Amino acid sequence: MQQPAKVISFTLAEIAAQLGGDVLGDGDIRIFQVSTLAAAGEGEIAFLANRKYRGQLQTTRAAAVLLSPADAAGYAGACIVTANPYAYYARVASLLNPVQAGFCGVHPGATVDSVVPDSVAIGPQVCIGRNVELGDSVVIHAGCVIGDGVRIGAGSMLYPNVTVYHGCELGERVIIHSGAVIGADGFGFAPEGKSWVKIPQIGIVRIGNDVEIGANTTIDRGALEDTLIGDGCKIDNLVQIAHNCRIGPNSVLAGCVGIAGSVTMGEHCVVGGAGMVTGHLSLAEGTTISAGSLVMKSINEPGQRYTGVFPLDTHDDWVHNAAHIRRLGKLADRVSELEKKLKEIEIRD
Amino acid sequence: MQQPAKVISFTLAEIAAQLGGDVLGDGDIRIFQVSTLAAAGEGEIAFLANRKYRGQLQTTRAAAVLLSPADAAGYAGACIVTANPYAYYARVASLLNPVQAGFCGVHPGATVDSVVPDSVAIGPQVCIGRNVELGDSVVIHAGCVIGDGVRIGAGSMLYPNVTVYHGCELGERVIIHSGAVIGADGFGFAPEGKSWVKIPQIGIVRIGNDVEIGANTTIDRGALEDTLIGDGCKIDNLVQIAHNCRIGPNSVLAGCVGIAGSVTMGEHCVVGGAGMVTGHLSLAEGTTISAGSLVMKSINEPGQRYTGVFPLDTHDDWVHNAAHIRRLGKLADRVSELEKKLKEIEIRD
Amino acid sequence: MQQPAKVISFTLAEIAAQLGGDVLGDGDIRIFQVSTLAAAGEGEIAFLANRKYRGQLQTTRAAAVLLSPADAAGYAGACIVTANPYAYYARVASLLNPVQAGFCGVHPGATVDSVVPDSVAIGPQVCIGRNVELGDSVVIHAGCVIGDGVRIGAGSMLYPNVTVYHGCELGERVIIHSGAVIGADGFGFAPEGKSWVKIPQIGIVRIGNDVEIGANTTIDRGALEDTLIGDGCKIDNLVQIAHNCRIGPNSVLAGCVGIAGSVTMGEHCVVGGAGMVTGHLSLAEGTTISAGSLVMKSINEPGQRYTGVFPLDTHDDWVHNAAHIRRLGKLADRVSELEKKLKEIEIRD
Repeated sequence: MQQPAKVISFTLAEIAAQLGGDVLGDGDIRIFQVSTLAAAGEGEIAFLANRKYRGQLQTTRAAAVLLSPADAAGYAGACIVTANPYAYYARVASLLNPVQAGFCGVHPGATVDSVVPDSVAIGPQVCIGRNVELGDSVVIHAGCVIGDGVRIGAGSMLYPNVTVYHGCELGERVIIHSGAVIGADGFGFAPEGKSWVKIPQIGIVRIGNDVEIGANTTIDRGALEDTLIGDGCKIDNLVQIAHNCRIGPNSVLAGCVGIAGSVTMGEHCVVGGAGMVTGHLSLAEGTTISAGSLVMKSINEPGQRYTGVFPLDTHDDWVHNAAHIRRLGKLADRVSELEKKLKEIEIRD
Repeated sequence: MQQPAKVISFTLAEIAAQLGGDVLGDGDIRIFQVSTLAAAGEGEIAFLANRKYRGQLQTTRAAAVLLSPADAAGYAGACIVTANPYAYYARVASLLNPVQAGFCGVHPGATVDSVVPDSVAIGPQVCIGRNVELGDSVVIHAGCVIGDGVRIGAGSMLYPNVTVYHGCELGERVIIHSGAVIGADGFGFAPEGKSWVKIPQIGIVRIGNDVEIGANTTIDRGALEDTLIGDGCKIDNLVQIAHNCRIGPNSVLAGCVGIAGSVTMGEHCVVGGAGMVTGHLSLAEGTTISAGSLVMKSINEPGQRYTGVFPLDTHDDWVHNAAHIRRLGKLADRVSELEKKLKEIEIRD
Repeated sequence: MQQPAKVISFTLAEIAAQLGGDVLGDGDIRIFQVSTLAAAGEGEIAFLANRKYRGQLQTTRAAAVLLSPADAAGYAGACIVTANPYAYYARVASLLNPVQAGFCGVHPGATVDSVVPDSVAIGPQVCIGRNVELGDSVVIHAGCVIGDGVRIGAGSMLYPNVTVYHGCELGERVIIHSGAVIGADGFGFAPEGKSWVKIPQIGIVRIGNDVEIGANTTIDRGALEDTLIGDGCKIDNLVQIAHNCRIGPNSVLAGCVGIAGSVTMGEHCVVGGAGMVTGHLSLAEGTTISAGSLVMKSINEPGQRYTGVFPLDTHDDWVHNAAHIRRLGKLADRVSELEKKLKEIEIRD
């Protein structure tokens, strides 16, 4: 896999020429790496994205800082001014730490039964089936297995030991981490007495452009129609997405999330770690589900945040109730006390 | 892996000859694929299994429909009448979409240290250890690793990158999806001061006939005795089954379920997605655990459904209480109001 | 993988010579295997670690038993007396069931781009990148992929189909089970409008000595700093550890646990199955989190046990409240009754 990158550096002026923004101070300062305000040293560029850390601007030893216009106003050191310092930091980090295949062409230890472009890099022990279509510069690391008829768009990278079942389609610039399984059979069985008859899963998985999928995540193929992952979705490790789901573009699913079958999520939804959504529900555009929450009914109002387990509730209502759950014992004591006093009053009367 | 199937078709009469049922209407209608009542078109057969969709019978453009005797009575189009249309649909779908290895024999890129039947299909980069016994027509896809002494029954299929540890036994017609790990060490350590001494796991995993196991699921070998998965069990993706569990025949475990060590489940239990069962518990035959629930005590009464987290409860009691949890804040307000009024009465008195 | 062990046996005297403890009774009794008091037969040694099973000492057919001094006092049969019979049992089990690679040297079907010691065992289809450093007697089973620059300490064993990304470091005697992924990119994206900019993950994963990691577990590399797993940690299957976590030495994470990014856990913490810890929290030394619990705030007091979901609470307080949650419906009925009676009193007044 990936070889440790050679030392790469750019001056502030070179960075701004590529990524935009205004350099204040010495544009010839040479940057070798990114860091935080607290940890940065010589040759390192830091960023201020959260005003909570503003005090660190006084003490940082960073060679330069990425700042919003408001924060740059009071800063005497070298900086690049940009509307979104955090996204800019992400791009500088990519410039300084490019992802490289570390090899090119088709390794002689790979088994490739399709015609592939010269620009691809296919590692040892990779198996590529028949009628597979790879875009330019696709990188497939060691041990991956790509089923018959799979299509993978240009610039995509599959880390070692990924499996893509037959017929599935991946967009451009898709990143899939090790152990992920795309297109295994959905979980469909018809009951017959006490046993179960397997329902063939004849849909596929279609993944859009610029999607990233974490290690050991599983996305099942559709039963009749396809499972769809929209452009720009970011999916963490050990996530399960069942058959026929439609995940809206730019949605984010954190680690250990489970999405049951036939769930439809609108654009730009976010599900926190270990959040679960039960089958056949819809989540409106921009819905946020807090970590550890269980969604058991559709959410129709867009842009809301939900939290909780048995039952789920709006986050604010949940916070209000949760405090009472912790005090339930005391509440019960108060009710007992009330009953006692009432009885005294009634006897007295 | 699997090549896209060639076009396969059968007439209604041919289907009924193979699967039973009565054809009403033109038995020569040719069927190429299955679909839903809403989506089916020319050459497609649909089914009605849920009376909720009965109205779609009026408008469906399906070439034929699978119907129960009651529903067939009022239907004018071509149909096959069967007691269980959903199971029949599953079988028609299998006829029209047969699973094919896409290759046969032992791929020269496999490493096979055992004698295997001529009827097996073993893909590239597969590793098979010593003293492995494979039944007829076993299919092992690329990248699987089969440990020494493993036995796999006839007609079983392992998708790419499955690992089966030494000594484990799989029945006939078992399906294991990519990335699943069968027989890794159970999680057993003896405390000694603040550190932990590993306890060797000398049992195996025994899997019955007709079991299906999902992608990236893990089933651990036993500590002293074996971990047992009964005939006909269906296990979804990313499920964890710890050492010494005994899962009863025809049980169903949905995605992301976790079963801790030494759990015994009776026949035909169902655990919904992300359900968890803590260690050393028993679940009676026919127990259903709702999605997201946490089971912390044994369930002795057969055939009941349980729901909840901290604590678990019968489903009906949980539904009753859950409504109150949502209104806990208001309940507390009412108690405060009562206390205030009582104080007024007491002062007045 | 591992070949079934040849029959190994030791006399009680030989065992005590290797592991310590005092033999009472015939030291020439030959032991072939470990078992439980209830199941042990000829040639098998059992143990009593939980006084609950003390009655079984009367009826056991074990050839010998491992006993604490207190329990040995009243036992007439052959035994080895030791302060910690359970840990002693673990060690006897390891003597009788040694883990063997089943092969040695570098398999010709492996792709190895680094210089490795003669003492290592590297299976078929293994891929080892450039500048990899392996300690003595490292065993890497079939299908593993080891990235450039990885270091693995002496005596470590990787089961089949493990992936270790470039640059990561593993200590000595580390065991990693199949399908585990060490060092995939942490989940880091900067928002920009509705889309997300990938933040390169330039840290690594550093794993201490004597760590065991379960099947299909994922441990992400750090964003800027490293992800750290302390010496002696034991991590079960399907666990997710996000970027920048620091897991204290000798901590135990059971199956399906999820630890979000930048969590710091002190020494000897225990998280029960499916427990979840949200991001940027600290857990004090010796903290125990019950199975299925969700931790949403830092825990500063060392050595406490916490249980619950929305919200988490000390275990004792949770048990007290949980009983009330089950009776919430009745509590609400009592409040209604109070309100009714108060109204009667007020009308009467």
